[in-house]
Amino acid sequence: MALVKPCPQCGHPIVHYRNPTPTVDALIHIPGRGVVLVERQNAPHGWALPGGFIDYGESAEVAAVREAKEETGLTVELTGLLGVYSDPTRDPRQHTLSIVYIAQALDPDELAAGDDAKGVDVFPLGRWPTPLCFDHERIVNDYATLLKRVTPHQR
Amino acid sequence: MALVKPCPQCGHPIVHYRNPTPTVDALIHIPGRGVVLVERQNAPHGWALPGGFIDYGESAEVAAVREAKEETGLTVELTGLLGVYSDPTRDPRQHTLSIVYIAQALDPDELAAGDDAKGVDVFPLGRWPTPLCFDHERIVNDYATLLKRVTPHQR
Repeated sequence: MALVKPCPQCGHPIVHYRNPTPTVDALIHIPGRGVVLVERQNAPHGWALPGGFIDYGESAEVAAVREAKEETGLTVELTGLLGVYSDPTRDPRQHTLSIVYIAQALDPDELAAGDDAKGVDVFPLGRWPTPLCFDHERIVNDYATLLKRVTPHQR
Repeated sequence: MALVKPCPQCGHPIVHYRNPTPTVDALIHIPGRGVVLVERQNAPHGWALPGGFIDYGESAEVAAVREAKEETGLTVELTGLLGVYSDPTRDPRQHTLSIVYIAQALDPDELAAGDDAKGVDVFPLGRWPTPLCFDHERIVNDYATLLKRVTPHQR
């Protein structure tokens, strides 16, 4: 899909090709404690999974590890792909798609909010602040369902 | 990452923000026969999985079903997510990432090359024309490994 915007100097129509913008989110589960969420500094405000845009020249896996570190202070290891969430209405600002990885923190004590986060905390599954931003409630619910299926007594 | 290109009329620098471009591919397995591959009309030439760019405003799932239909004539139902392939060097033209779905054809007899394909065919697993374009050999190998794990005697 092409978006045509005028050149700010002369008004000549400039074509920008448009695709959904790819992002990543990290579902960091700390066994016995819950899921790591970040309180957003920027709109939309509220709590969300740590994540962000994938840079050109960067793999999705590298982006997920980088964003987790920047927003939560945690060094994480990705353990699997939870899913891809690409509904065009999932982000009110523009069409983004998110590739969501399950991750584990190498040292949970490193937890600290990054510069562009108001706060960071760990929430027991099913007891997170609602509503979460974007479609993150659906994502965390998908994770909780998967966890219950593979290890019913884990929190 | 931002890419600056001059306005073609006045030379004013126009910023284009860059992220990897998201694409989809469909791994269509016809039980007992193999995997559906398309012979590309455009460079890079050779055989590849059916797939293409996700349009703005379109979910990844809808794009995968649409591309499968356009390139192979097959109406498909997606049965699962095989993986996300996002190595920056996977496509020689630009950084793309591919979300790959496993799919089944509702009627394998509908198989017919689309307008932008030179040909389409079904190849038994492990006996496809090598090398496949992009990183599609790795993707088809990942599928073959998964299939062998869940149903060892399936072809």
